[in-house]
Amino acid sequence: MLEKYILAAKREKKCDLVLKNATYVDVFTASIKKGDIAVVGEKIVGVGEYEGEREIDCSSLTVLPGYIDGHVHIESSQLSPEEFASLIVPRGTTTIIADPHEITNVCGMAGCEYIAKASESVPLDVKIQLPSCVPATPFETSGAVLEGKDIEENIGNSYIFGLGEFMNYPGVIYCVPDVLKKLEAAHAAGKVIDGHAPAVYGYELNAYLCGGITTDHECVTKEEIEEKISKGVYVHIRHGSSTQNLGNAKYMTDGNMRRFILCTDDRHAADLKEKGHLDDALRRIVADGTDPVRAVICATLNCAECYGLKWRGAIAPFYLADLVAVDDLKSFNAKYVVKSGKLVAENGKPLFDTSKRYLPSSVLNTVHLKEMKADDFILTLKGKRAKAMTIEPGGVVTGCEIVEVDSRNGDVVLDGTDLLKLTVVERHKMTGNIGRALFKGYGFKGGALGITIAHDSHNIILMGDDNESMARAANRLKEIGGGMVIVEKGGDVHSLTLDIAGLMSSRDAEGLQRDSRALIEKAHSMGVKREYEAFMSLAFLSLAVIPRLKVTDAGLFDVEKFAFTEIDA
Amino acid sequence: MLEKYILAAKREKKCDLVLKNATYVDVFTASIKKGDIAVVGEKIVGVGEYEGEREIDCSSLTVLPGYIDGHVHIESSQLSPEEFASLIVPRGTTTIIADPHEITNVCGMAGCEYIAKASESVPLDVKIQLPSCVPATPFETSGAVLEGKDIEENIGNSYIFGLGEFMNYPGVIYCVPDVLKKLEAAHAAGKVIDGHAPAVYGYELNAYLCGGITTDHECVTKEEIEEKISKGVYVHIRHGSSTQNLGNAKYMTDGNMRRFILCTDDRHAADLKEKGHLDDALRRIVADGTDPVRAVICATLNCAECYGLKWRGAIAPFYLADLVAVDDLKSFNAKYVVKSGKLVAENGKPLFDTSKRYLPSSVLNTVHLKEMKADDFILTLKGKRAKAMTIEPGGVVTGCEIVEVDSRNGDVVLDGTDLLKLTVVERHKMTGNIGRALFKGYGFKGGALGITIAHDSHNIILMGDDNESMARAANRLKEIGGGMVIVEKGGDVHSLTLDIAGLMSSRDAEGLQRDSRALIEKAHSMGVKREYEAFMSLAFLSLAVIPRLKVTDAGLFDVEKFAFTEIDA
Repeated sequence: MLEKYILAAKREKKCDLVLKNATYVDVFTASIKKGDIAVVGEKIVGVGEYEGEREIDCSSLTVLPGYIDGHVHIESSQLSPEEFASLIVPRGTTTIIADPHEITNVCGMAGCEYIAKASESVPLDVKIQLPSCVPATPFETSGAVLEGKDIEENIGNSYIFGLGEFMNYPGVIYCVPDVLKKLEAAHAAGKVIDGHAPAVYGYELNAYLCGGITTDHECVTKEEIEEKISKGVYVHIRHGSSTQNLGNAKYMTDGNMRRFILCTDDRHAADLKEKGHLDDALRRIVADGTDPVRAVICATLNCAECYGLKWRGAIAPFYLADLVAVDDLKSFNAKYVVKSGKLVAENGKPLFDTSKRYLPSSVLNTVHLKEMKADDFILTLKGKRAKAMTIEPGGVVTGCEIVEVDSRNGDVVLDGTDLLKLTVVERHKMTGNIGRALFKGYGFKGGALGITIAHDSHNIILMGDDNESMARAANRLKEIGGGMVIVEKGGDVHSLTLDIAGLMSSRDAEGLQRDSRALIEKAHSMGVKREYEAFMSLAFLSLAVIPRLKVTDAGLFDVEKFAFTEIDA
Repeated sequence: MLEKYILAAKREKKCDLVLKNATYVDVFTASIKKGDIAVVGEKIVGVGEYEGEREIDCSSLTVLPGYIDGHVHIESSQLSPEEFASLIVPRGTTTIIADPHEITNVCGMAGCEYIAKASESVPLDVKIQLPSCVPATPFETSGAVLEGKDIEENIGNSYIFGLGEFMNYPGVIYCVPDVLKKLEAAHAAGKVIDGHAPAVYGYELNAYLCGGITTDHECVTKEEIEEKISKGVYVHIRHGSSTQNLGNAKYMTDGNMRRFILCTDDRHAADLKEKGHLDDALRRIVADGTDPVRAVICATLNCAECYGLKWRGAIAPFYLADLVAVDDLKSFNAKYVVKSGKLVAENGKPLFDTSKRYLPSSVLNTVHLKEMKADDFILTLKGKRAKAMTIEPGGVVTGCEIVEVDSRNGDVVLDGTDLLKLTVVERHKMTGNIGRALFKGYGFKGGALGITIAHDSHNIILMGDDNESMARAANRLKEIGGGMVIVEKGGDVHSLTLDIAGLMSSRDAEGLQRDSRALIEKAHSMGVKREYEAFMSLAFLSLAVIPRLKVTDAGLFDVEKFAFTEIDA
């Protein structure tokens, strides 16, 4: 095994692949050097003057180690892992730390296993973090529950890399026994634990970190970053579609810079396709003043060190030949991408088969529902004053407005108001749970729209002004196995299938986006205000950890009181 | 398990130990901070304002993470691991990466196991690197041979941390199959491999590193350091008794500083006792201009990262409570040392029981020899011109001088010359091997002196001008189970026992040193020139990898020709 590397390293054997005359980033000395980068099998064997069976002229390019995304939910792209790889590998990302939190909420361990296995056919190393908080809250019905004993049972699986973001930081700080059991299981297995502790400071932060937690991707202020790094945390610089903290890069110093890593967390297919992945993060932080070599180190060596990924994240002998050749350290425009020694992308296009799909039955047909009827959507109030949810600017925090509303035959009357019914229908376990709420100001009229993405348990969330349309919408979602739907009152049904767990599509990104855009346009044509993301804004109205009023399949939830509440005001 | 840390971290429970009002080095941000350092069990739970069952006022002290010695042969101290710990722990060292290369050459795996087990009773974490090159050369008889299959068999042992310094760099570069087998076994077990590649550069260095080697402690020049770091190597700053490269610290930059670590390699008991251990290294590099915070990082976090020692090398929540409180960052004078949460040394004195000795029979009585007679030391030459070994300034490189020498009754005549017989007697396997040589200029007269430390196979090496005395010396070494001896011709025998493998003493350092000094003085009184280290200079005359002429139990060896040679010139 080693002989082939050694012989080629000392030039007694031709290399398999040589990136000739490359300028490259030496992450160990934080400098820029020149040479031929020699590759044998999956390894770099050296830099110098080398000959290869295949040679690529890199005289006008700068070669970097392949990027490592420190924290990502593939599901947020709505793409299969294979298709996701086809978008991000050509951008230069060769390793991701993936937390399949969403699909595991739907499918349990089968979701984790699916992401791992589906990733095997693509030239992207997908390190699976076992989701630590499934469900994210106890106030809803998820498809799966991972208790302490489940984490104990699964954390040692060969395809599990570590324990995913520990969002339940109050559970750690308040020493909830089953929460501690999860952490202890991860430590016993010697696995790294990702953190998630927005605005946790001081003694509470000390307590949280005493859970043995390594990272945080929620930092946003200088003070928070400094405190967390000082307490041993690796801090992510995040380039999500909506959640961003690229500004964190500004707080790097000579002294603390090894503790910063890049990640994307949640990034939509459109952004991946049009703007990019970590390449876009690099481009932006460099444009914003970060030293490009330092930026590259955050995207490579730092992340490898954080996650204990040996022989990865650098251009040096015996390191994994994950390489990206870019035009320059400003555009980060990827010309060639090499993964484990193989050229896998050129000029932004994948050179690997992107058509394969691993589709086990365990992640398909995940909408389990009895036939819904119009009457299921009746909303009966005791009086005339009700709480209506609103969305505040920013898109995820909701408000509560007290509204006057009439009823007729035991059902609220929405005609002539800007109110809509917002309903969460449990879709995992046939509990028949239906959570009901009123929503004000979405703008939609004349039917129903719905989606099977509803954070974090991913039940069906529907909005509408017509019971019959809402029932038809739910039934269509069941029929297609999950996705998005619009029902025109007494008319057509328009839908888009997200066949994988109701969260992701097995189609290619381009077709999916085209149809998705059409459906979103349809929603806007039926009145959904442009300030909302038609479907994805709905998806966060069930997330009962973000203020103020949310609705789950178990009912209306007052996040500030941390308790269910009545719609009647 | 985690609950006690978390409760104390948020001050709902008193801590076990608090270092009050400490100034401390924050290795993550490379800065100096202040606070109470709170400890529960073996962990740090936080820094802030804390109360403890026990509190130590550190208001005039600076607290650092316990030091980690990146590479050390305990045997070079001639002390047991227990006594070694009693000297270095009070200096602030709490973890060592120990390569029991010497004792393994004598005792095989039992030597490794002994070092591991003996270390269990002392508050020092001893991470055992399985010696990779036993014997160091094929030109001598050692007590044990560790072939590739032996490494395969043992590298996974629970008490083995990694693979020790791979001195056989030509074996790697030339792809010797059994050498590669050793490296491959270590990789298969996921273990770190230490390097040793003095003045190996360029393509040969690429080849060596393609063995998957992580460190080098032999760097001395700026160019060598820069090349090695750039190629992914962690470079040691070494503070041995004779081998030193503290000057390496000068080549640290903002960009490469995380790749420097401290070590001592070989350090004598007298230096440990009088000058210190890594504290002395820190003192010196800081005196020489290295930023003290950066120096501390090299002695702590960097080393922990290099060797994958998680939760070690920093003062932060969940990190191992290995701490040293020093007067200041100039003297590095250790006032208190805390190991795994326990106060284990104060004012340079150990607070732990230093009298325990683990002494398994496998490392005792290791001198296996038939009774030697005067005739065994006859040296017969064919002619009158002979090669005589000399020692060049520096102490380990030897020269070869052609001398005229008379013979009588088939034995050389040494009277009236400054020649001595230098003889290596195999002492492991009763082979009866005797290697003979002539040595010029040592100064000794009137008997014999000898020692069972003779690098790296540690046979008996004897020097003398009288056959009878040499035989008596060998027999005394057998009788005492190894050590050092001086025989006065026709008179007294003076000896000092190194009962552990003939390399180390089970006594305390003070008694050993006193007696050792007396014996050394005796040697000088019998003529050994002051420029030599009486016994320890002998110990390197058998090291057949250092130029030019050496003698092993198999005969006189010409290192430059890499072949045995005749004494006759």
